[in-house]
Amino acid sequence: MNLTRRTVAEFLGSAGLAAVVIGSGIAAQRLSPSDVGLQLFENAIATALGLPVLILMFMTISGSHFNPVVSLVDVIIGGRHWSDAAAYVPAQIAGCISGAMLANTMFSDPAISISTTDRITAATFVSEVVATAGLIMVIFLLARTDRQAVIPWAVGAYIGAAYFFTSSTSFANPAITIGRIFSDTFAGIAPASAPWYIGAQLIGAAVGLILVAWFTPRPTEVQQVATG
Amino acid sequence: MNLTRRTVAEFLGSAGLAAVVIGSGIAAQRLSPSDVGLQLFENAIATALGLPVLILMFMTISGSHFNPVVSLVDVIIGGRHWSDAAAYVPAQIAGCISGAMLANTMFSDPAISISTTDRITAATFVSEVVATAGLIMVIFLLARTDRQAVIPWAVGAYIGAAYFFTSSTSFANPAITIGRIFSDTFAGIAPASAPWYIGAQLIGAAVGLILVAWFTPRPTEVQQVATG
Amino acid sequence: MNLTRRTVAEFLGSAGLAAVVIGSGIAAQRLSPSDVGLQLFENAIATALGLPVLILMFMTISGSHFNPVVSLVDVIIGGRHWSDAAAYVPAQIAGCISGAMLANTMFSDPAISISTTDRITAATFVSEVVATAGLIMVIFLLARTDRQAVIPWAVGAYIGAAYFFTSSTSFANPAITIGRIFSDTFAGIAPASAPWYIGAQLIGAAVGLILVAWFTPRPTEVQQVATG
Amino acid sequence: MNLTRRTVAEFLGSAGLAAVVIGSGIAAQRLSPSDVGLQLFENAIATALGLPVLILMFMTISGSHFNPVVSLVDVIIGGRHWSDAAAYVPAQIAGCISGAMLANTMFSDPAISISTTDRITAATFVSEVVATAGLIMVIFLLARTDRQAVIPWAVGAYIGAAYFFTSSTSFANPAITIGRIFSDTFAGIAPASAPWYIGAQLIGAAVGLILVAWFTPRPTEVQQVATG
Repeated sequence: MNLTRRTVAEFLGSAGLAAVVIGSGIAAQRLSPSDVGLQLFENAIATALGLPVLILMFMTISGSHFNPVVSLVDVIIGGRHWSDAAAYVPAQIAGCISGAMLANTMFSDPAISISTTDRITAATFVSEVVATAGLIMVIFLLARTDRQAVIPWAVGAYIGAAYFFTSSTSFANPAITIGRIFSDTFAGIAPASAPWYIGAQLIGAAVGLILVAWFTPRPTEVQQVATG
Repeated sequence: MNLTRRTVAEFLGSAGLAAVVIGSGIAAQRLSPSDVGLQLFENAIATALGLPVLILMFMTISGSHFNPVVSLVDVIIGGRHWSDAAAYVPAQIAGCISGAMLANTMFSDPAISISTTDRITAATFVSEVVATAGLIMVIFLLARTDRQAVIPWAVGAYIGAAYFFTSSTSFANPAITIGRIFSDTFAGIAPASAPWYIGAQLIGAAVGLILVAWFTPRPTEVQQVATG
Repeated sequence: MNLTRRTVAEFLGSAGLAAVVIGSGIAAQRLSPSDVGLQLFENAIATALGLPVLILMFMTISGSHFNPVVSLVDVIIGGRHWSDAAAYVPAQIAGCISGAMLANTMFSDPAISISTTDRITAATFVSEVVATAGLIMVIFLLARTDRQAVIPWAVGAYIGAAYFFTSSTSFANPAITIGRIFSDTFAGIAPASAPWYIGAQLIGAAVGLILVAWFTPRPTEVQQVATG
Repeated sequence: MNLTRRTVAEFLGSAGLAAVVIGSGIAAQRLSPSDVGLQLFENAIATALGLPVLILMFMTISGSHFNPVVSLVDVIIGGRHWSDAAAYVPAQIAGCISGAMLANTMFSDPAISISTTDRITAATFVSEVVATAGLIMVIFLLARTDRQAVIPWAVGAYIGAAYFFTSSTSFANPAITIGRIFSDTFAGIAPASAPWYIGAQLIGAAVGLILVAWFTPRPTEVQQVATG
């Protein structure tokens, strides 16, 4: 599969992810104004349903990363070339920003509004470390034991759960963190909080990478699909 | 499989789809009167659970389209004969109208009541374009990479998510759009809004078709199942 | 597998089904007193999650019918012996009654309390016909096209959806209808309503059987699992 | 797979389980203060989504027990060595306590707070017996009929349902029972109630074991995965 097609797949998949996360957040916030837990529940389930479908759609094309730390870990541990990551990461970020604008547009909001939701605390920092370490482990422990087919559903279920078992609602993805800056709605994050989230995600990815390497020193077999 | 049997399958599956969407909408509206988000949540999950089952039931018979734009795209890109679409599309429309009448009847409403819910705005128009493009991509990217078995669950999950990540609640189907005219309840749509929704769906289908063709110039192998 | 073991499997599976349906109904009613829709949502999802597991557990043993109309249809169309149904049906009824008693006990209610919930109307009668016809079609269309492995999840999803798309909350099973008489709680049914529900279920089963036979005149291959 | 790696897998998986159960309980309690049923619903679905992922992650490494009664039953009926259980059980308990501390930390609570939630009644005792017997049957009936691949999803669905169909919210696991002592939040259990829960779980495990042995005298084939 040529690099252009794969990069466009990462762009579209990341845009879809941001549209699902932010769009369903806006809908939940507007339609269930009296219970924040119910809003998060609707947002989490929409994501748990939508994310696996996006992964399925582009899995055989780009590997469906939609997430810079997944691409980075795949370079380090999965044998992917740096040149791939160099193309994927900008596409993921541009995709998530575009998806945020699309979500805003689908709900009659201005295409861009900068979020004012401060999210960073010690608790959310720890949450992002944990959430990202877990995400890396889910993807790569399954990929390295030749269970790629279950990865889309496992990742969707994981993120759906992590909306609730962390206090950060589990962004676990630097690109979506950047994209969420551009929507001053339920799922947004203020620009000042974003770098801390991304820092936590990088730490989490490193933790996950070390554990994956320790648990599965060698993958079961050479993988056809990029990373899962 | 002879055309009569396949056409009846499309009729029954489309009727089932309309009954699930409209029936669960009526139940949600009546039983959860105080929170519109919860109503939509119940409606979305009932659809996400019911739609895959309908697709599974008739997949080996008709291909389980239940949707004129799916049949049209399948003619253009999947090698299906125009004569099939000519039989399927009327069956889908008749099925969705019958399903609406059945749903009304199952909830003690008059069999037919014309919806008064105006739904068309710029935001819902964009939403229908996006929702339909996504639906076409889900179905045909999976079908063209030989992953038919996962299509029922992927389509159900996609539509479940799309209830929330769009502002139109993702009809994404001209036949169900017509069927929903005939129920003046939670899931209904006023006759004046329907043509706009269908127009947006046709645009979305074209967008999806172009992207599918670009991503998967050739299907992985000849498909046994009609379209997935 | 000998008949005793299979019959005990039907008893335990039916008891489990009644315990899940009635137990989760009691929990939902007590814990979410202010919204009947949310109660039904909790009840439906608990059933959609629990029922597939029960079917999986006993599928290779008895075929996991837990439902007299499934056993009857399997005798007529699936080649099962009448002697099996003669053993299964009483076990299913006894199991559902025992499961109702267990649910009552798990929630500190008297083991038996006769329901006072009148449920029969023209709308619920039609609903039970539709729900049961659909259930028969799900099970046997899949079984007869060699897709037994997906039946547990399809049946769970179907019933979860049918809680909402019918006005009867989709009993679709004479044994569970009888069992629900014995719990005067959320999921109960008054004795006077039960025969009407069972009548509707028998009509629905006949409709489903006719459609299955018409769509799949011959099963794809001889089935190893009893009926799926 | 060497014992150290397997034991660490049990520790991490158990920690993850406790973090999911307790963390999502805290989130639900804080975000949905007005409806206890909705809190439990959010808690149950987060667990039903998260638990299968944890099982998938470590299944090929340790067998993903995360539960002393599963390890015990696997020794008795599955051919696992006592030395394995002797390593697993302490790791499971330490993991669940660590996970409780992690959950508390992710939500800005003190790392340890002893629960004050008395939970033991005759009804919850019976509930734990039933819940644990069912869990053992799900795992071992599937494992012994060579259906390991479905176990993660079946266990997650089972526990999700059991939150609602029992009055104990289905701990069904002595290690998580101990871990929940250390969080005075929604999912906690007072120290005085814990031994009763564990006693009920041991009885339930024995009941489940006897039924599994009766239904499947011999496993279908030697299992590669530890217990499923």
